[in-house]
Amino acid sequence: MSGARSAADHAGPDARRRAILDAAARRFAVAGVELTSIDDIARSLGATKGKIYHHFGSKGELVRAIRLHSVQLTHDHVLPAYRGGGDPATRLHRMAAAHVEVMMQALAYHRVVVETMRAHPHRGATQVERSLAAQTRALQGTYEDLFRDVIREGIESGVFAGQNLSIALHSLMMLLNAPVYWYRPRLGERGTDRDAIKTQIAAMALGALRAAPGD
Amino acid sequence: MSGARSAADHAGPDARRRAILDAAARRFAVAGVELTSIDDIARSLGATKGKIYHHFGSKGELVRAIRLHSVQLTHDHVLPAYRGGGDPATRLHRMAAAHVEVMMQALAYHRVVVETMRAHPHRGATQVERSLAAQTRALQGTYEDLFRDVIREGIESGVFAGQNLSIALHSLMMLLNAPVYWYRPRLGERGTDRDAIKTQIAAMALGALRAAPGD
Repeated sequence: MSGARSAADHAGPDARRRAILDAAARRFAVAGVELTSIDDIARSLGATKGKIYHHFGSKGELVRAIRLHSVQLTHDHVLPAYRGGGDPATRLHRMAAAHVEVMMQALAYHRVVVETMRAHPHRGATQVERSLAAQTRALQGTYEDLFRDVIREGIESGVFAGQNLSIALHSLMMLLNAPVYWYRPRLGERGTDRDAIKTQIAAMALGALRAAPGD
Repeated sequence: MSGARSAADHAGPDARRRAILDAAARRFAVAGVELTSIDDIARSLGATKGKIYHHFGSKGELVRAIRLHSVQLTHDHVLPAYRGGGDPATRLHRMAAAHVEVMMQALAYHRVVVETMRAHPHRGATQVERSLAAQTRALQGTYEDLFRDVIREGIESGVFAGQNLSIALHSLMMLLNAPVYWYRPRLGERGTDRDAIKTQIAAMALGALRAAPGD
């Protein structure tokens, strides 16, 4: 990883912070958050612990920064599809495909999110850690509202079946998150493999919303 | 919980073991596995630590026994729908509804499964712990094969869209597991609330499989 290191060393503090986050997400995803130390992360960057502590006060802060970055990446990748034209089915399909795509692109980040989902974040958390968690919750809410909007619009216009909006939203999000649990890139994998996953799950999402509850 | 205790005390060892598992699953689900001690579980049963250690050698063994029991419950609840008559769509719909039902009925068990999904089970695990984990993996495979069978049959007969079987199966399981993440029984909740959740998610599952990948 010395390439990443020297590139980051010549870049600004944001790029250095980001290089540390990337390395931490990779280490956490491979070995698990609990079993990974700041030392492990420093080693994988060819850097010292001190360099990491210059940017992140603790392992808890790193985890929370990864969680926030994961939601930010997802939101930014899906927003254009939300804002794009088309009826609710077309928009939902594009948003679903974009969501699945970013799950696979930033797999390490999302695996950390999944692993730490049931963690109890406020016990002994620092001010910075609490602030990162609060930002993450707020952005997660904003993100889910994009899907809520389009599902509501689809139900109201009759493109989607009449159904409970909240059940539909939360079930859909799980369906779209599914690749985080089972997708692992294969050696020599082609882009078409990811395309096939993205296309199939987006179609499943659309089919799920179109189905009538008493079907 | 003294009622549960005295009932269990008059029952056989299986019932006592089960009462401990129930209490452990509840405590783990409420406070998190990491923050719950054997002492906490004993207290919630009005029992001593010794009584728990008589049945389970460690907290790790309790967690693995809960995981195995969770898969066993789910498998046993869904099997009749798999074996029942009807075309693949009818059977899949009934299996999906049964799966969602047991997620809500045994919520504490399934929450422990979700919380410990990314745990690394073999580091320092005892013989008993390894054996429980192996049984769980085997039964989980058997269980997923029920869905795999019906999805394959549905694709072959044209009831479901032509699609990648493995992506369909794993995405479907996540959709059906969704309530574990967000369902929390409300005070005064009626059975109809659960029925509505079950009916809607089963319909979504069927719709997801019927949708054509290029939809």
